[in-house]
Amino acid sequence: MFILPAQKHGIRQLMILKKPALYTDLYELTMAQGYFLSGRHTQAASFDYFFRKLPFDGGYVVFAGLADFLQSLEDFEFQPEELDYLKTQGFTDEFIDYLKDFEFTGDIYSVKEGEIIFPNEPVLRVEGSILETQILETLLLNTLNFESLIATKAARIKQAAGDKPVVDFGLRRAQGLGGLQASKAAVIGGFKGTSNVLAGMKYGVDISGTMAHSWIQSFEDELTAFRTYAEHYPDSSILLVDTYNTLDIGVPNAIKVAKELEEEGHRLKAIRLDSGDLAYFARKSREMLDEAGLDYVKIAVSNQLDEHLIKSLLDQDAPIDLFGVGTKLVTAYDNPALDGVYKLSSVNERPTLKISENVEKITLPGSKRVVRYFNEDGEFYRDGILLTDEEDITKVVHPYIDFKYTHTESLKKEELQQQVVKNGKRIIDLPAASESAAYAQKRLSQLPREFKRFDNPHIYKVGLSPNLRKLKDELIQQKES
Amino acid sequence: MFILPAQKHGIRQLMILKKPALYTDLYELTMAQGYFLSGRHTQAASFDYFFRKLPFDGGYVVFAGLADFLQSLEDFEFQPEELDYLKTQGFTDEFIDYLKDFEFTGDIYSVKEGEIIFPNEPVLRVEGSILETQILETLLLNTLNFESLIATKAARIKQAAGDKPVVDFGLRRAQGLGGLQASKAAVIGGFKGTSNVLAGMKYGVDISGTMAHSWIQSFEDELTAFRTYAEHYPDSSILLVDTYNTLDIGVPNAIKVAKELEEEGHRLKAIRLDSGDLAYFARKSREMLDEAGLDYVKIAVSNQLDEHLIKSLLDQDAPIDLFGVGTKLVTAYDNPALDGVYKLSSVNERPTLKISENVEKITLPGSKRVVRYFNEDGEFYRDGILLTDEEDITKVVHPYIDFKYTHTESLKKEELQQQVVKNGKRIIDLPAASESAAYAQKRLSQLPREFKRFDNPHIYKVGLSPNLRKLKDELIQQKES
Repeated sequence: MFILPAQKHGIRQLMILKKPALYTDLYELTMAQGYFLSGRHTQAASFDYFFRKLPFDGGYVVFAGLADFLQSLEDFEFQPEELDYLKTQGFTDEFIDYLKDFEFTGDIYSVKEGEIIFPNEPVLRVEGSILETQILETLLLNTLNFESLIATKAARIKQAAGDKPVVDFGLRRAQGLGGLQASKAAVIGGFKGTSNVLAGMKYGVDISGTMAHSWIQSFEDELTAFRTYAEHYPDSSILLVDTYNTLDIGVPNAIKVAKELEEEGHRLKAIRLDSGDLAYFARKSREMLDEAGLDYVKIAVSNQLDEHLIKSLLDQDAPIDLFGVGTKLVTAYDNPALDGVYKLSSVNERPTLKISENVEKITLPGSKRVVRYFNEDGEFYRDGILLTDEEDITKVVHPYIDFKYTHTESLKKEELQQQVVKNGKRIIDLPAASESAAYAQKRLSQLPREFKRFDNPHIYKVGLSPNLRKLKDELIQQKES
Repeated sequence: MFILPAQKHGIRQLMILKKPALYTDLYELTMAQGYFLSGRHTQAASFDYFFRKLPFDGGYVVFAGLADFLQSLEDFEFQPEELDYLKTQGFTDEFIDYLKDFEFTGDIYSVKEGEIIFPNEPVLRVEGSILETQILETLLLNTLNFESLIATKAARIKQAAGDKPVVDFGLRRAQGLGGLQASKAAVIGGFKGTSNVLAGMKYGVDISGTMAHSWIQSFEDELTAFRTYAEHYPDSSILLVDTYNTLDIGVPNAIKVAKELEEEGHRLKAIRLDSGDLAYFARKSREMLDEAGLDYVKIAVSNQLDEHLIKSLLDQDAPIDLFGVGTKLVTAYDNPALDGVYKLSSVNERPTLKISENVEKITLPGSKRVVRYFNEDGEFYRDGILLTDEEDITKVVHPYIDFKYTHTESLKKEELQQQVVKNGKRIIDLPAASESAAYAQKRLSQLPREFKRFDNPHIYKVGLSPNLRKLKDELIQQKES
C-alpha cells in the first residue's frame, strides 16, 4: 500500500490553527468579560472534562487530543486583528486591554493520551482563575471530543482487523479541516498509517496510498496504465483492478505486470479491490494470483468498510491482507460526536454541582482524581473517582445505589491523572502519535475482552469514594431545599 | 441571543489552512509523479465533481464550499519544508523541483455557491493538464463535500423553523477544525448566525451567545448570577434558567431580574431552556412571563435539536422564539458525509468513463454542462446534462431507460455553470457567506415543495442530452467488448 517509513526528522505537533484563541463560542468571551468587569475574574475555579455516553454502543473510549490541546494552549493568545474584531462586536476597551496580555497561568491534570476511559470520569482537570479556566472550554471540548471519538472508532476497526494492517483513506469525506486530526487520531487508535500527507508531516505518522481509477482511465488501456505505474514504483505498486472488469480484465493484467516485474527482479506489492462483493472477489483473485505463482502479492480492499464489515469479511475467511478505511472512520459515521463536557466543580474552594432535570446529568462536585484498580491478572477491574485531598480509601461506592460497592484494599491500583501543566507551563513532553498509539494498545490489552465486544459489551464499573458520594448528596439536599 | 451585527470591515475569506497543498491523499502525489516521469503530465484532462446519493433521505443538496475552495486554490503552493518532507518520503529530486514552481493554470466552471443541486450532476468541472487537475482532487472533495453537507442540513433545519431564527451552537462537538467550515456552511444554509467567533471574524457572519451553567454555579445563588450578567449586558441578556430548577427557581429569578431591568429602562432579551421537555417548559415559562407583563421576553431553546424535533415543537405550538442547534447540525449527525466524487471525463479530447460492478457508479463521459429547465410558474422542472460543445437540444432523456424523456423546446432554461477560474486565475469575486445564503434562499423558493418534504420527498429528474446518452452507451459497448 505504498506504506512509507515514518518521518524521521522529529515530531511535529504544529496545529494548523496557529493562534486558536478565537476558535471559541462567543459566550466564553461574554462571560469572561462579565467576570472581569464585576471583579470576580480571579476567583479560583476547577473544571472537569468527562463524557457521559459511550459511542458506537461500545464498552470504552480511547482518550486522544491531549497533545494537540496542549500545543494549542501554548499558542493561546489574542492577535491584534482579533482584538480589533472583538471591539467591533461590542466588547469594552478595558476588557480588550486585559485580553492583550492574556495567557493561561493555571494547572492541568490529565490521564495519558491513549488511556482507556469510561463515562463520568473526570479524565482531565483544569485549575486556575475562573476567567482563564472558563475561556478554554470550547477549544478543549472541540479537540478532545473529536480526537477521542476517532481514536475509539479506529481502535474498534483495528480490533476487527486483528493482525492485518488498517490504513486511513478518509480525507476526501472528512469533515473539512477536521480531517487532519482524524488521521492522527486513527493512528492513536491503532491504524498503521494514513493517506493524509499533511498528517504525515505534522504528526510523523506513516503515509500510504495506491492509485485512482483516473490513472487507469487516462491511458488507452489498463495494461499500459499498470505497466507505467509499476515502472516508476517497481516495489511498492498496488494496482487497482476494478476499473473495467475485476476478474476478466483487472486481475489478469495485474498478473501480467507482476510477471514482468519478476523478470526485472522486482515484486508487485498488491492489488486493490474497491467495489463489488469483496469476499468473493478476494477469494477469486487469490486463486488466480496463487495459480500464477504470485502468492506474495497481497490483496488490499476498500469501499465503505467499518469494524462490522471487516469482521464479517474475516469471519468468511476472505483472503485479505490490508484494509483501507475511509468515511466510516474519519466521520465516526454511526456516531459522529462524543458528548464530552467541561463542568465547573469548585469555585473559591466551594464545591459546586449542577442539578439537571435529567438525573444522569447531575455533576460531581469538588476537585477530583481517578484511580484504577486491577484484578489478580493485572486487568482493569474498577475505577474510582476520589477527591484530590483524600487519602487512600477502602471501598468505592455506586453513584446512586447504597448497597452496591467494591472493597479496594487488597487491589493493586494506579493514579490515572498526572500534572501536565503547572502555572501555565507544560511540564511533560508532548506525546507523539506513535507513543500514544503504543500506550493505547498496551491498555487495551489490559481491558478484559467482555468490554471490547461489539454487541452488548459488559459495562465497566466506575464508583465514587464514600466522601465524594457524601459531598454530592449533601449538596443536592442543600440546593433542593 | 446576544446576536451581534455582522462584521462591517469587509469580507474575510481566509482559510485557517493557509498553504493547503499537502492536505491531500498521498496517491495524488504518486500519480502526479508517475505522469511527470513518464512525460504524460501535460495531457489535457477534464474532471467532474458530483455526488450520487442525497443525504438525510432528502430531496436536494445546497452547494457550498466554492469560496473556500477557490481561496485555497490561490494558496496552493508547496512550501520548502513540505518539499523536504516529500523528499524523505521517496519522491524524486526531478519531481520535487517541478513542484517548487507548481501552480494551477487550468480552468474551472461551477454552479454558484448556494445553488440547489441533485445527484449525478457535474456541478463543477476542472480542465487543465492531467497533473494539475488530478492533484486538486482531495482538497476539492474535502471542502465541497463537507460544506455542501452542512449547508444542506442547515437548510432543512431552517425550513422546519420557518420564520424563527436558528443559530449554530455546535463548535464544542464539531469534528475538530472542521467546525470553522461548519459554522460558515450553516449560514449559507439559512442560519441567522453562529456562536463560533473565528467564523464570525473570518467569514463576516453574525455571532451570538448566551451563558453557561458554570456562570450561574460560580455565584452563591442564581439570582445574583442573573443580576450580575444583566448589569453588564442590560439589553442583550439571555438567562439560562435550568441550572437548579426551571419553573420553581430559574424562571422566577429571571422575572425578578427583568423587572429590575425595566426600572432602569432596559429589557431582558430572553430566557433559555436547555433540558427537560422543551414544549412543556416553554409553555409554562411563557405563561409565567406573560402573567408578569413580560410578553416581550423571548424564549430560546437548545438541547439536541434537529429539523425533526423543531418541527415537532412547532407542531405542538410550543411558544419558542429562537432555536440554538449544535451537534446535530455541525456533524450532520444522521448522515455525516456527502458522497461527492471527482471523476475523469476526458483525456486528450478522448471521453472516458469508469465501468463499475455497481451500475449506478458508471460515470458520464466527455466535457459536460448542466442546464435547468423551469415550469410555467418559474419553478425548477427538470435538469439536463449536456455536452459542452453541443447546441440547444429538444429533449432530455433518461440515463438508462429508453422510453423516458422530456421535451424541452418550450421550457425556459438557465445554464447553471459559469467559468470561475481561467488560466489559473479566479475571474469571479469570492461570494460572501451572506450572498450565498441569499442565493440559496431564492433558489429554495423556486424548488417545488414536494422536493422539500422530510418524508419520502419527490425525486427531481435529471436527464441527459441524447448525444451524451449515445456517447455513454457507445463507450460502455467498447469497454465491454
